Amino acid sequence: MTAVPLRVAILGAGNVGREVVRAFVEWPERLQTDGGPGLELVGIAVRDVDAARRRGLPSELLMDAPAHLVADPDTDVIVELMGGDEPAHTLVAAALGAGKSVVTANKHVIAHHGPELEATARRSGTALRFEAAVGGGIPILGPLAAELAANRVTAIRGIVNGTTNYILTAMTDEGCGYNEALAAAQAAGYAEADPAGDVEGHDAVNKLVILARLAFGSWIDPADVTTSGAMDGPGGGRPGITGVTSREVAAAAADVMVIKLIASAQRSGQRIAASVVATLVGRDTPLGRTAGVTNRIEIDAEPLGTVAFSGPGAGGAATSSAVLGDLLAIARGAGSTWAGLPFAGRLARLTR
Amino acid sequence: MTAVPLRVAILGAGNVGREVVRAFVEWPERLQTDGGPGLELVGIAVRDVDAARRRGLPSELLMDAPAHLVADPDTDVIVELMGGDEPAHTLVAAALGAGKSVVTANKHVIAHHGPELEATARRSGTALRFEAAVGGGIPILGPLAAELAANRVTAIRGIVNGTTNYILTAMTDEGCGYNEALAAAQAAGYAEADPAGDVEGHDAVNKLVILARLAFGSWIDPADVTTSGAMDGPGGGRPGITGVTSREVAAAAADVMVIKLIASAQRSGQRIAASVVATLVGRDTPLGRTAGVTNRIEIDAEPLGTVAFSGPGAGGAATSSAVLGDLLAIARGAGSTWAGLPFAGRLARLTR
Repeated sequence: MTAVPLRVAILGAGNVGREVVRAFVEWPERLQTDGGPGLELVGIAVRDVDAARRRGLPSELLMDAPAHLVADPDTDVIVELMGGDEPAHTLVAAALGAGKSVVTANKHVIAHHGPELEATARRSGTALRFEAAVGGGIPILGPLAAELAANRVTAIRGIVNGTTNYILTAMTDEGCGYNEALAAAQAAGYAEADPAGDVEGHDAVNKLVILARLAFGSWIDPADVTTSGAMDGPGGGRPGITGVTSREVAAAAADVMVIKLIASAQRSGQRIAASVVATLVGRDTPLGRTAGVTNRIEIDAEPLGTVAFSGPGAGGAATSSAVLGDLLAIARGAGSTWAGLPFAGRLARLTR
Repeated sequence: MTAVPLRVAILGAGNVGREVVRAFVEWPERLQTDGGPGLELVGIAVRDVDAARRRGLPSELLMDAPAHLVADPDTDVIVELMGGDEPAHTLVAAALGAGKSVVTANKHVIAHHGPELEATARRSGTALRFEAAVGGGIPILGPLAAELAANRVTAIRGIVNGTTNYILTAMTDEGCGYNEALAAAQAAGYAEADPAGDVEGHDAVNKLVILARLAFGSWIDPADVTTSGAMDGPGGGRPGITGVTSREVAAAAADVMVIKLIASAQRSGQRIAASVVATLVGRDTPLGRTAGVTNRIEIDAEPLGTVAFSGPGAGGAATSSAVLGDLLAIARGAGSTWAGLPFAGRLARLTR
């Protein structure tokens, strides 16, 4: 047992990063482990140091060179909360290669570079944890890897993108059209100025790929996941929810159904079938009743049966819970999110 | 890394024990860990060896002296699935004292002897794991101790007893009286011949005590948990669901409400208020819609918000998932269910 705390550097201080910093400043007692080392925040890399200072982040920790924090021999754990592909991917890979543990909420980097990052982390014997990448603060990846480890998971399905669910809920409850609902979501801060990543299904695909890694032991290529439904189904064959019309929503309601963007993966013999498509579900089913930015993930497993996890799937405070839990896990010596599971390479082919 | 497997002995081969044995026999590949030791079943203690043999349990492993398996130097891990207080309590304590890891589904023993067993396990440096004691196969204790570890949990509430929920669901859906619904539950195998432990709320109290240990860091005395509601509320002040009448159920339905046995604990200043009482809840709320033997547990936490876990809260197959997950956790070196959390003593006083 060492009393020397692990030195933590945070890359990115947006919605999630700010809440992680707040925990270090306001509730340091919650970041203690029993017997293990503590956690000490030693640096925060942001794009604009002055702006971050004005938002109240601790001046003495701010800097604008994330690569320096990764290379610095005085950091032990890197928390990557920049999002997007580069430079996040290179920084995560460099940290793992240098033997530093990494916590990230970056679903894109994990889904698109997972096989390479897993190989690097295993080779260097460091921990890569990413509970925050799926379902915000809902515990889901850890339970798949630990409590459910003895099961054979047969299927996963869920609502894992809050933006699209907010838009579909608005179209259903308020009868507005897709463009109007999208604009409302943007005004409320639930959709980005360029909403393609959410509304075309890519964000949900990334989360499904990560869920499938834990549930099925293989990395699916995100490009192999179907994002367009049937031409005669909801959305008329267009990707994600971009083709969903108010007429389709009304027709569904007449049948006591709602349209939801359902991420789904199931075993099909030796293969895995995976899709993220606008889908008709019963209005009074648990998925049909999942409204707004709530997420819900259902797991079918043997011998367990079906279990479901629901809660706030996005938001800085909720997501910080998962990042902080991963930091505590590293302080407890828990290893990577997949610790205990066999190495997973890229799945060669995918059944659509 | 040792290749020598951990030698596992199972005490009790009822509904859960049989499914655990089945996993060792039929799916040994699911009980491998990556790099850690494997798990080998070396003994099964049952009350009636001949009956167990006739039910297909492996003859060469059967015996009728559980204490011998606990004392045997050739066992490393004890799986206690006998239930009840004694001899289960003494056997679990003896195993921990002898430095053996223990997995148990026994909510009574953990809730009533938790402080003593936690002290023993910590003193001898062994693991005591009991995920199966709450919510059957639903992952709930592990997520509270790990993924939610950085949160301040403010409240827990849920439906954690399948028997009473089955009875209340039958009274609601079929309009039958309490005695008729209880008899139906007994006929269907969902209630025992002596149903007091379930219908008077003791089973739910035990589960609430265990949830509170993980969520609040203190052991509540089960005797301090209120099991009787108000005289003018559902059940007329009688314990658990024993006083619930078909008239009360019908009156609730007229208000779009249902009566549920709700286990609830929340922080109240420095204290914890805990109760298991028949409660009116909205019919269309997630708890109101939790029917039959399904369990649902909701956690309010900061910064996370509210998350919910639902699934099969009982049954041999579902519960075996949690027992097997705990066995894998021990093979992975994960420690006790509370690993990483500070030592918890008995809470001195409880706010009712």
